[in-house]
Amino acid sequence: MPTISLTTDFGTRNGFAGVMKGVIYKISPNAKIVDISHTIAPQDIREGAFALWRAYSFFPKGTVHLYVVDPGVGTKRRPLAARIGDHYFVGPDNGLLTPILEDAEHKFEKIEFFELSNPKYFLPKVSRTFHGRDIFSPIAAHLANGISLNEFGPSFFDPVRMKMTHPEKTSNGFTAHVTLIDIFGNISTDLSASALQGQTDVLFRLRGAEVNGLVETYGHRSAGDLVAVVDSEEFVEIAVVNGNAAQRLSAEVGDVVDVVFSVK
Amino acid sequence: MPTISLTTDFGTRNGFAGVMKGVIYKISPNAKIVDISHTIAPQDIREGAFALWRAYSFFPKGTVHLYVVDPGVGTKRRPLAARIGDHYFVGPDNGLLTPILEDAEHKFEKIEFFELSNPKYFLPKVSRTFHGRDIFSPIAAHLANGISLNEFGPSFFDPVRMKMTHPEKTSNGFTAHVTLIDIFGNISTDLSASALQGQTDVLFRLRGAEVNGLVETYGHRSAGDLVAVVDSEEFVEIAVVNGNAAQRLSAEVGDVVDVVFSVK
Amino acid sequence: MPTISLTTDFGTRNGFAGVMKGVIYKISPNAKIVDISHTIAPQDIREGAFALWRAYSFFPKGTVHLYVVDPGVGTKRRPLAARIGDHYFVGPDNGLLTPILEDAEHKFEKIEFFELSNPKYFLPKVSRTFHGRDIFSPIAAHLANGISLNEFGPSFFDPVRMKMTHPEKTSNGFTAHVTLIDIFGNISTDLSASALQGQTDVLFRLRGAEVNGLVETYGHRSAGDLVAVVDSEEFVEIAVVNGNAAQRLSAEVGDVVDVVFSVK
Repeated sequence: MPTISLTTDFGTRNGFAGVMKGVIYKISPNAKIVDISHTIAPQDIREGAFALWRAYSFFPKGTVHLYVVDPGVGTKRRPLAARIGDHYFVGPDNGLLTPILEDAEHKFEKIEFFELSNPKYFLPKVSRTFHGRDIFSPIAAHLANGISLNEFGPSFFDPVRMKMTHPEKTSNGFTAHVTLIDIFGNISTDLSASALQGQTDVLFRLRGAEVNGLVETYGHRSAGDLVAVVDSEEFVEIAVVNGNAAQRLSAEVGDVVDVVFSVK
Repeated sequence: MPTISLTTDFGTRNGFAGVMKGVIYKISPNAKIVDISHTIAPQDIREGAFALWRAYSFFPKGTVHLYVVDPGVGTKRRPLAARIGDHYFVGPDNGLLTPILEDAEHKFEKIEFFELSNPKYFLPKVSRTFHGRDIFSPIAAHLANGISLNEFGPSFFDPVRMKMTHPEKTSNGFTAHVTLIDIFGNISTDLSASALQGQTDVLFRLRGAEVNGLVETYGHRSAGDLVAVVDSEEFVEIAVVNGNAAQRLSAEVGDVVDVVFSVK
Repeated sequence: MPTISLTTDFGTRNGFAGVMKGVIYKISPNAKIVDISHTIAPQDIREGAFALWRAYSFFPKGTVHLYVVDPGVGTKRRPLAARIGDHYFVGPDNGLLTPILEDAEHKFEKIEFFELSNPKYFLPKVSRTFHGRDIFSPIAAHLANGISLNEFGPSFFDPVRMKMTHPEKTSNGFTAHVTLIDIFGNISTDLSASALQGQTDVLFRLRGAEVNGLVETYGHRSAGDLVAVVDSEEFVEIAVVNGNAAQRLSAEVGDVVDVVFSVK
């Protein structure tokens, strides 16, 4: 029986995630349900996108990843189910899947999108404000039960995409970009650590501040130091030890990060 | 194997909910455990009541709903197990089940209450402060294992009831009431949206403030606007877009909400 | 299939605990996973130690307790798997298991420690910063699958120990100590309630303040009162009703608590 993962901005207090699990177990009693997060910043599609992208590939093949960060609930945004590589996804068509989609395109994996239009697989009564309960949870459960994607509605080929950046090669390094700022003020970039291989010295420049070299872990520097580290997904991150880097630098998503290799 | 849902005010930091799950799995290894909430406001029976009432009917028939919001722990309040319609409930007899009970009475569903007095189904050692672990979790697990309710103790017919209000019909609308104020300051009322059917114009008056008509979603108004919406349980809610309605209006549970239909 | 419990300081927002569960289900699809806590104070080994110690014995025999409070990640601290009595443990060798270990030694239970050095049971790629995902979760899952502890690496006999205190008998009572201060400012001590049996009057002295006698529950006193209660693990706790005892008394872990029996 497949695993179903949940990523939402519902919080944990009011029981909304619990209700979704009740709906899932009612349809798919043997599903294994795993919370990825229910405390994505409200309506923050970008934060949800990176949380799910970081997590999904560690789950078993065939996992159904249900996500509900859905500022457009009640409007005409499409509800979707997708297969991307060995994983399934169910949620609103709002760009949250973009980083996963880009990785899959890069690897020439199988990609299919379907619009959820067949009410046979919804709850009998669909509210205007809680599609997580009334549409997405039952679809995820039916998918876990083996119902084919094309039962849910027509396929489509133009999923909404979130704006993504990629580093550009320069004469002596890269022009990278800020991709995400987390609640601690840590600044994620689009620069893969592998791009730095073989370089002995590297300088990062962001909003006028300069950081020399990568540190192995926060523990190697003092509180308040501005440092560059490699995060657990192997991307370069700019951080302040025990502090808030984004606030100190007034950094924002999309900001340029100059990456300069030393001349030897 | 039945599902067991958990609704508590224990918080998630100290591991109390985890301990309860350990106790449950020890007795009922194949139970499926679902968290509804562990962050009900401390000792707030009303908040717990509405959270469980909103959630329970979406769970599979036969689910055991375990709730521990228990300001009376260590006093003489009865511990109970109940069957209400197709669902089971285990927790302190403190009124938390009232909204569920009223719905069941309205539908003439089967209702049975039993006092937990048979220590055979408790943990061997019962503490004075943690009945969630020592009494309620083992009872819920035994219930999931198929033990009959009447094994746990004698039946009773006078469960404690929480004060509930209901809208009263007036010449040109309803007198409704505030039932719950959530942490965001949203104001729930006892007025079902169905009571407004066929009405083209409706005015809500609460603590001197007036709201004209229902909006479909928060997104249709500007931040700071006082609005009336239909919540995901189909009741009317008064809210401030991105703000705190209860604070602005000094609203309290029990307040009257005048609902006035326009003369045509 | 064994239960796997999780105790971490990862928080619930970024999906790190969810990733660990994905890794576990990939290796051990039928594991039952229970969260004890993911909001242990960051890097607070002591808080994690007491949370796991309070919880573990309520879980089924054979449960694998996975803990990741790991300030030393990326340094040379040993990763370990252990059997203590009827339970298994997986995590960094940093003293977090000390209270459990002391209890087991006291009861002459079987104790075995193994260093995790066999990469066959890790994820193929081990990051420098997320051993919870790359080492500890796969080991816990393989352990749940029945792999023997000695497959993971060599045994060892000198696990790191956290500083623990124990009450000392005096002529008219005990010298006890503060073991833990929780986020609410409640002050746990190393004095078991059983040490007070048969005493009619007892005085607690801490940082110059005096508390007379034990109250049964917080509810028996007024807000702001400094009281002594017996916690759910049967140890004496000093607290302020609806207040912060640690702050009021400037109490710290290790502080002496004089326990004085009345002369009859």
